[in-house]
Amino acid sequence: MAIEIVSQNKTFGGTQFVYAHESVETKTKMRFSAFIPDGVKNAPVIIYLSGLTSTEENVTVKAGAQRVCAELGLVFIAPDTSPRGDDVPDDVEKAYDFGLGAGFYVDATQEPWVKNYRMESYIGKELMEVIGANLPVDMTRVAITGHSMGGHGALTIALKNPDLFKSVSAFAPIVSPINCPWGQKALSGYLGSNQILWREYDACALLEDGAELIPCLIDQGSSDNFLESQLKTQLFENALLISGQKAEIRMQDGYDHSYYFIATFIEDHLRFHAKYLK
Amino acid sequence: MAIEIVSQNKTFGGTQFVYAHESVETKTKMRFSAFIPDGVKNAPVIIYLSGLTSTEENVTVKAGAQRVCAELGLVFIAPDTSPRGDDVPDDVEKAYDFGLGAGFYVDATQEPWVKNYRMESYIGKELMEVIGANLPVDMTRVAITGHSMGGHGALTIALKNPDLFKSVSAFAPIVSPINCPWGQKALSGYLGSNQILWREYDACALLEDGAELIPCLIDQGSSDNFLESQLKTQLFENALLISGQKAEIRMQDGYDHSYYFIATFIEDHLRFHAKYLK
Repeated sequence: MAIEIVSQNKTFGGTQFVYAHESVETKTKMRFSAFIPDGVKNAPVIIYLSGLTSTEENVTVKAGAQRVCAELGLVFIAPDTSPRGDDVPDDVEKAYDFGLGAGFYVDATQEPWVKNYRMESYIGKELMEVIGANLPVDMTRVAITGHSMGGHGALTIALKNPDLFKSVSAFAPIVSPINCPWGQKALSGYLGSNQILWREYDACALLEDGAELIPCLIDQGSSDNFLESQLKTQLFENALLISGQKAEIRMQDGYDHSYYFIATFIEDHLRFHAKYLK
Repeated sequence: MAIEIVSQNKTFGGTQFVYAHESVETKTKMRFSAFIPDGVKNAPVIIYLSGLTSTEENVTVKAGAQRVCAELGLVFIAPDTSPRGDDVPDDVEKAYDFGLGAGFYVDATQEPWVKNYRMESYIGKELMEVIGANLPVDMTRVAITGHSMGGHGALTIALKNPDLFKSVSAFAPIVSPINCPWGQKALSGYLGSNQILWREYDACALLEDGAELIPCLIDQGSSDNFLESQLKTQLFENALLISGQKAEIRMQDGYDHSYYFIATFIEDHLRFHAKYLK
């Protein structure tokens, strides 16, 4: 469970680290970034899951989370989006939405993905243990968030593990992969054709099947090009009605799917989580 | 003097634009980014000059300037660092510190650079005119800043044009290109071997030769790998003593040369400039 430092840079009075470690789940070397405010001990943790094509780097350099994390004393963790390496199978056409960079936060059951593509267990178990063993954090105070595919990951992992997290949020999440082309490609590829098995990787289906939702904030841009075809926020609102649970869902007028949208609202998300992580 | 919109994204209640236009000075299509807070008219302007290898994109996505510019009503402009295009000559070895991405904010006099590499006139004249003609700005209220090579550009252009700007600042600037390897390579290449001519592109020499310094803030990281070999902040402090002028120079303990450093202190710089742009 040892980790190595890939890089470290002082920022906002704390340190932005990139770490690497040998993962038991993915059988590869995995990277994650960690912003650690100066002097914290037993700090609460935010885990941020990135979207398609991203690595741990995108949110780390583009979202501007460090300023508010420094103020609030939060450790901010951003893992990679899939296993990587020459031995890891990739989409035959190297598509951006399957294989490398597109692990979809599921544990694959199908060949050739089953060996390495175990991102659900990597995030929900191994990464949590690695962070807890190596960083100055309190793993009883953890929140999870994410963008797009990572919003799907945050919602489904929180719905399946309500005891591990105090709160969940998402930026422009894929709320129902069963019902969108990105999700259908990923779930059929990683899990096979039996759609019953897909339901545990679909936030709406989990709600409909009785999962408990912890405190939840979702922001969605109204000018997001993927809103109608892939993200379908309305399906989550419908599932909440069916399950009798509530979330704060905000449609942000004129915002798109980019990090300009995330940078604008990440302060709200950090302050939302900080309330539950006290 | 027409400009075209390359991209636009809503962020922090304003719009992050990337524009392109045909430049008379460089004889190429030049790009610059512009963050425009919503609803501003006759807004004050900050011009940010980037460092080696950068384009207009780096500061735009990494520095997090938009949040504070939105609050203060500032238009934030980031031009590219050199002319670009298949017809523009580049360093024979495609080095990162000369040619494309490394215009050094000078007007070249030597072949083959003389035709396109006119970044001083591009920034100090043409870009100012293009902004004034096309954006909701007040060109009597302009400040200039920059990073590394761009800090050199900001300081020298401000020292040569004290009437155009209300204030100047810099992050880890090259304060004396005459006295560092990056500068010696650039100035000899663009201007030739007569070092007398180099003095008007050297902030320290300009101070020693009597130039007026407008209100000036400089931040420099103490852990910057380039501090001793290239940046040499102490030479600027010496030149200030010789010229009998003052600047606020802050050595920031533990910070390096990266955008993590810039992101930490850009809010201070924007608030510094806002005082003089009222």
